[in-house]
Amino acid sequence: MNKYMNLALEEEKEGVQNNHGGPFGAVIVKDNQIISKGHNEVLKQKDPTCHAEIIAIRNACKKLNTLDLKGCTLYTTCEPCPMCLSAIIWSNIDNVFYACTKNDAAEIGFRDEMIYDFIKGKNQDLLNLKQIDRDACIEHFLSYKGDNY
Amino acid sequence: MNKYMNLALEEEKEGVQNNHGGPFGAVIVKDNQIISKGHNEVLKQKDPTCHAEIIAIRNACKKLNTLDLKGCTLYTTCEPCPMCLSAIIWSNIDNVFYACTKNDAAEIGFRDEMIYDFIKGKNQDLLNLKQIDRDACIEHFLSYKGDNY
Repeated sequence: MNKYMNLALEEEKEGVQNNHGGPFGAVIVKDNQIISKGHNEVLKQKDPTCHAEIIAIRNACKKLNTLDLKGCTLYTTCEPCPMCLSAIIWSNIDNVFYACTKNDAAEIGFRDEMIYDFIKGKNQDLLNLKQIDRDACIEHFLSYKGDNY
Repeated sequence: MNKYMNLALEEEKEGVQNNHGGPFGAVIVKDNQIISKGHNEVLKQKDPTCHAEIIAIRNACKKLNTLDLKGCTLYTTCEPCPMCLSAIIWSNIDNVFYACTKNDAAEIGFRDEMIYDFIKGKNQDLLNLKQIDRDACIEHFLSYKGDNY
């Protein structure tokens, strides 16, 4: 077993044991150094964004004092949900290794697969999403000249 | 213009004015009460997960002392990226109103649309994503019996 995935699994086990949240652990590595770790803390923090990968990314950014994790690899015990996958891309992480799949997550009751399907145009009853007021907002929006992170 | 979208636009303007990040503002409303607000703070916090919607969701969960935002409506000045859209679904927010689109975001250099395309199976060079070690992880994963948030 990959040694970093093994550490991610240890994170997962610690999180479940302490009732912090679902069975998800993640580790971020750069140049063979462990930069950060995280496990799901959704229940502990009462925060639906506290997935293992999000916590690991936030910790890595703090540790390296940057929002750009280019050159980093993330190991996670389950295929990232679309929230985490997008956070990974926004952070410029290069490589991701995952173990269990979104189908496995569905088996224990998590909605990862339903959210993937929503984004792909199915399951449209998951959320009521409507556009309004673009005319009132577009001018300020398009005038932005800053960084694109 | 919708009064809550107007507040979201004010949030957006405040964020850009202070160089906190991109031009994105969000407001969460429940029973005609404003629960929380947020604007993009990616640059300020050096944290790629600090999108307006994520901040508004985290603030709403703190304020209501719950991870379940059922009954809430989110107003955001731009179509949520897949990270934020997924966070919205994980939080059980029911309704989302957005103004500018992911195509507008692409015009000012943001990668929202590329991430949507990655999830839909295009742009696969954005991230190197591989499965390993499922056999070593699946037993603990499937033994989980807790809540599915």
